Amino acid sequence: MSEKTAVVLLSGGLDSATVLAVAREEGFRCHCLSFDYGQKNRRELDAAKRIAEKNSATHRVAVIFPGVFGGSAMMARDGGEVPKNVETEGIPVTYVPARNTIFLSYGLALAEAADADAVFIGVNSVDYSGYPDCRPEFIEAYQKMADLATKRGVEGRRIVIRAPLQTLSKSDIITLGTRLGVDYAETLTCYDPVGENALACGECDSCRLRRRGFAEAGVPDPTRYTG
Amino acid sequence: MSEKTAVVLLSGGLDSATVLAVAREEGFRCHCLSFDYGQKNRRELDAAKRIAEKNSATHRVAVIFPGVFGGSAMMARDGGEVPKNVETEGIPVTYVPARNTIFLSYGLALAEAADADAVFIGVNSVDYSGYPDCRPEFIEAYQKMADLATKRGVEGRRIVIRAPLQTLSKSDIITLGTRLGVDYAETLTCYDPVGENALACGECDSCRLRRRGFAEAGVPDPTRYTG
Repeated sequence: MSEKTAVVLLSGGLDSATVLAVAREEGFRCHCLSFDYGQKNRRELDAAKRIAEKNSATHRVAVIFPGVFGGSAMMARDGGEVPKNVETEGIPVTYVPARNTIFLSYGLALAEAADADAVFIGVNSVDYSGYPDCRPEFIEAYQKMADLATKRGVEGRRIVIRAPLQTLSKSDIITLGTRLGVDYAETLTCYDPVGENALACGECDSCRLRRRGFAEAGVPDPTRYTG
Repeated sequence: MSEKTAVVLLSGGLDSATVLAVAREEGFRCHCLSFDYGQKNRRELDAAKRIAEKNSATHRVAVIFPGVFGGSAMMARDGGEVPKNVETEGIPVTYVPARNTIFLSYGLALAEAADADAVFIGVNSVDYSGYPDCRPEFIEAYQKMADLATKRGVEGRRIVIRAPLQTLSKSDIITLGTRLGVDYAETLTCYDPVGENALACGECDSCRLRRRGFAEAGVPDPTRYTG
């Protein structure tokens, strides 16, 4: 039996860094894949690179052509302001059209090309922001599609879509990652970091969930906030 | 009621040119999307551009990072020779990992960003080459996934994945396209065209299917073959 191999979608944030630690703990050799899609938070990609290196994983950045994700507040162009300190209802303006579908599809292609057994993604449906493509029913439907899309699927050696954080709260994720030795000081979460040192704004949805998660987990928050 | 809008995946080949004509016939305003994924047949992209222009459709080319599709004979690097004059069994070496999954996912993202009602793709399961991601069950599974992935899906305004050639033979496709005014001289089909003028090799799977299709449809074949 050869070594198990996985593609890990790595954003540079808290969740995907934890996912990488989970995959490594399970004995997977990991190929990390990050995406440059014109996101406002460019420091994410640097963080992803450092995290992959520290975990002895290969790392690739896929550039996705900017126009495709137009119309979200997450984008450097086109989008509006990232909302601060507002409780949103329904699907928020930071939703990026079909983002996880594209990310998983690159992961699937890379997995098939590298004969990898799994694609890991850090979606989560507890402390999440209401995105449709973070829900368990989306991941299940993606798996069924992937089984039909790929040569491995047809041959009965499905590439498994793994979402190990799916049902964990943010504080559960932080507790898990801390146990697995994740250095959260390396991770970036903020949708809209401030200044040259990319300090977290502390006010966007993502910062608020992260802050609360560390508090609830009883783990010191290593994040450098601006305020 | 505003005008219906569609994203049409346009390779520059015979099938997708016919799909564009079908979408236009149905009254869709069309955004065409082609992919530069390092394919051997670079002339396809020029053909796609000309075909989109002649149909008064917008046209974008998405560049997909080369490494992701490694290991197929369709690729300019990595892949082996495109096989000639062999009947293949199972999934052929020209299979490109998860290609249609990625193409549809870009189409879906663009459709959601542009508030388009449909994504058209020219897959076909009659005279096809045995690719898993050309089968109707793949398209059905993709649709279910897309309904769960997108804001429009959640809101009950699904983006419909349309595969109007799914059950047509190559000669049916040519008959349909000829009726709709498709200029097949503009389209490129060959997996491995020859020389500066990109003459069709006449021998790869794709050329053979095309040649036979014109013969069976009783339509003069405008393709310039090398032999």
